[in-house]
Amino acid sequence: MTAEFMFERVALIGIGLINSSIARFMKRDGLAREIIIYSRRKLTADKAMELGLGDRAETDMATAVEGADLVVLGAPVGANTAIAEVIGPRLMPGAIVTDVGSVKGAVIRHIAPHLPKGVHLVPAHPVAGTEHSGPEAGFAELFENHWCILTPPEGCDPTAVEKIAELWRHAGSMIDIMDAAHHDKVLAITSHLPQLIAYNIVGTVLDIEHVTDREVVKYAAGGFRDFTRIAASDPEMWRDVFLNNQEAVLEMLGRFTEDLAVLQRAIRWGDDKALEELFTRTRGIRRDLIAAKQV
Amino acid sequence: MTAEFMFERVALIGIGLINSSIARFMKRDGLAREIIIYSRRKLTADKAMELGLGDRAETDMATAVEGADLVVLGAPVGANTAIAEVIGPRLMPGAIVTDVGSVKGAVIRHIAPHLPKGVHLVPAHPVAGTEHSGPEAGFAELFENHWCILTPPEGCDPTAVEKIAELWRHAGSMIDIMDAAHHDKVLAITSHLPQLIAYNIVGTVLDIEHVTDREVVKYAAGGFRDFTRIAASDPEMWRDVFLNNQEAVLEMLGRFTEDLAVLQRAIRWGDDKALEELFTRTRGIRRDLIAAKQV
Repeated sequence: MTAEFMFERVALIGIGLINSSIARFMKRDGLAREIIIYSRRKLTADKAMELGLGDRAETDMATAVEGADLVVLGAPVGANTAIAEVIGPRLMPGAIVTDVGSVKGAVIRHIAPHLPKGVHLVPAHPVAGTEHSGPEAGFAELFENHWCILTPPEGCDPTAVEKIAELWRHAGSMIDIMDAAHHDKVLAITSHLPQLIAYNIVGTVLDIEHVTDREVVKYAAGGFRDFTRIAASDPEMWRDVFLNNQEAVLEMLGRFTEDLAVLQRAIRWGDDKALEELFTRTRGIRRDLIAAKQV
Repeated sequence: MTAEFMFERVALIGIGLINSSIARFMKRDGLAREIIIYSRRKLTADKAMELGLGDRAETDMATAVEGADLVVLGAPVGANTAIAEVIGPRLMPGAIVTDVGSVKGAVIRHIAPHLPKGVHLVPAHPVAGTEHSGPEAGFAELFENHWCILTPPEGCDPTAVEKIAELWRHAGSMIDIMDAAHHDKVLAITSHLPQLIAYNIVGTVLDIEHVTDREVVKYAAGGFRDFTRIAASDPEMWRDVFLNNQEAVLEMLGRFTEDLAVLQRAIRWGDDKALEELFTRTRGIRRDLIAAKQV
């Protein structure tokens, strides 16, 4: 009698924070008979093997996906077109291709055209992360109690979608299904804009000429330190997110800038009522987050 | 033989997060023979007494400071002029007046003119806090390993300054002394601007009409949740900070907005190099913070 695995052969394309965390919970729960790790850098692939994340490492992508019934794309989203071109012809019928990217419209546009008939694309976005990157940064519990959003394109096989949902339930995630365009708008505001603002504020602070870096470090507890944590996130990953969700990010940024101009005017004119009203209103959402256990 | 106390009678004006934390470490270390608590609201004063934070509560400010050798102003900084007018005539010679406000130039301008000769003003800013407020939110360890900035005005008695420095060393803080104008510039960037941006982004998000509050809560782990924590801070306190450090805040905000316009253009024009360069640069300061144990 042989054990039943959810997947026979899983190919992880890229082994950073997210994919290395996936490897960990898949190992923990015995979800794959075999995990193949692909990394563009041999050093990273070796490191991942050392950490016991996979059964075999490959630095050739086409070889990595051979015979895989699940392929998880975990590279920065800007690399997807090139990846799909290489792996598309090597995928076996019935294989599921999923990803972990923070944008979904672009992911579908870049990958879908390169997949042969009979291969199922089920894009996924686990809404979780830390500011650390690389295979050593991952941990099996990263996704617990967080939402994972699936954005299956029209006509996607429901069985494949359910299988990916089941995979993420193993990670401890709650599942949502929505269309890619809505995902990209929602995430532009809950994730991409905050990230962009954090990068910007840290950049501004580093440029101030009459305040030394040492002073910035010493008094960071006043609020700045939270932004430095966010702005320490993976630069390549985020570069690709902004470039691939341009429209929604620019829209949200426009709204943010408008609101900031109003706030600036309130400070300049000493409008205490307007300030207090805004600062009181923003307090409420925190209570909602605590109630929803999302803090 | 009677025990030696650092202070005979301490009057805490306001008993929110900061002053209630001061009460706690003063009790712990036996620094005051007697602690008098003043709160404008009887309910808050009673709550503080219930929590064992003081020896006597007063809702009349003039009575509260009578015979005090240390007065700690812990109300929102906008209230300082009115407070100083009331307490000034009742302060005894040799008394030290200090505060815990996040702006220092305005504090000196508002308080100093109302203090009689022989009373020492030693403004202080413990750079620490949480998003919670009220007497029940305080804890004795709040200031540990954080900096406390003293901004004694010209001609201030060095013995009084040293006594306040010693008080903050008991709290576990490191002491810095600088002039009020420099403090206000440094804190505008490490604290006031980040706080303002957090308020603004949370306000923007709450206004988006095609994303529900429920969605915002669900996907907050993507970055937004850190901003909600900051934007849950005390509205009155922060209203007063911005209004009383207007010039420095507006200058920093101007720089932030300029930088954001450049970043917006880079996204619009797909300038991947510019994005990656900024996102890589902002990573470094996090390492400095970790090295300085300020995270």
